[in-house]
Amino acid sequence: MKLTSYSNYALRTLQMAALRHPRLTTVAMVANAHRLSNSHITKIVHELGQAGFLETVRGRGGGFRLARPAGDITVGEVLRLTEGPIEVVECFNPTTNTCPLFGVCRLSGAINRATRAFFEVLDRVTIADISANRDALLGRLALHLPDLAPSAEGAGDGHAPRPEGGEG
Amino acid sequence: MKLTSYSNYALRTLQMAALRHPRLTTVAMVANAHRLSNSHITKIVHELGQAGFLETVRGRGGGFRLARPAGDITVGEVLRLTEGPIEVVECFNPTTNTCPLFGVCRLSGAINRATRAFFEVLDRVTIADISANRDALLGRLALHLPDLAPSAEGAGDGHAPRPEGGEG
Repeated sequence: MKLTSYSNYALRTLQMAALRHPRLTTVAMVANAHRLSNSHITKIVHELGQAGFLETVRGRGGGFRLARPAGDITVGEVLRLTEGPIEVVECFNPTTNTCPLFGVCRLSGAINRATRAFFEVLDRVTIADISANRDALLGRLALHLPDLAPSAEGAGDGHAPRPEGGEG
Repeated sequence: MKLTSYSNYALRTLQMAALRHPRLTTVAMVANAHRLSNSHITKIVHELGQAGFLETVRGRGGGFRLARPAGDITVGEVLRLTEGPIEVVECFNPTTNTCPLFGVCRLSGAINRATRAFFEVLDRVTIADISANRDALLGRLALHLPDLAPSAEGAGDGHAPRPEGGEG
């Protein structure tokens, strides 16, 4: 049982946006801090934007920020978007199901209830909850991207070269 | 979020063993009824045997049956065996984790609690529960393997060619 990396990286993207809010975050910051590819994060930011979780600012010095308060976005809600249709077992999708027991098997009902219990927990956890220990998180993210270090927060622009701009 | 096919087929194997209990079930019965490969089911039966869920009878007319009462084997317990270490997100495995937030991120704790909630539901569902509507299940399984039809249950040997034997 595994979440897709796509979901995992989408949550990390929202978490970093929450940590930097209201300042802008860039694709390169998330990609560098987590050692992921820019194109992967670009795709995620696009989908999170379309779904109303992020707002983006175009152009030089642009980036993205949370479009809703971090305390209003739940992890469960994000996962429902990024995981797509939840098919814990194949019979959750009647169009591709091959199991001859479809419709009479009580296992699918049990797994359905278990999946609901999984999401009920994550529907009570918000992006604010997973970003609350801000200094510890920024300290770790700064291992790969020193600009994110908590001590640099609020220091303003111009003290050191910043690869992405977007501060302000 | 998805269970492995291995887990899915392991549960179907135990379900069929419960439906036929105390008579023996064969690898070919499970494979034919579900249109899966014999080698896939052979591997599953071997692991379920090693773990004490199934007992096997070797030789001509052999097969396997549940080694414990169906009402004592929970779906959660089977999944813990067949899913191996549960790594819903990569940081559940410290040796392969690449996330720089390991140890300070509260997302992993939340997903851990959600995963526990998932298993708590399935720890209350037994193989007997998912095999209770026996006639409906056997009717469906018989679509690909007429020997399994409920009407043939208890009819004894010798009335029709049986590809696997194992009745008795």
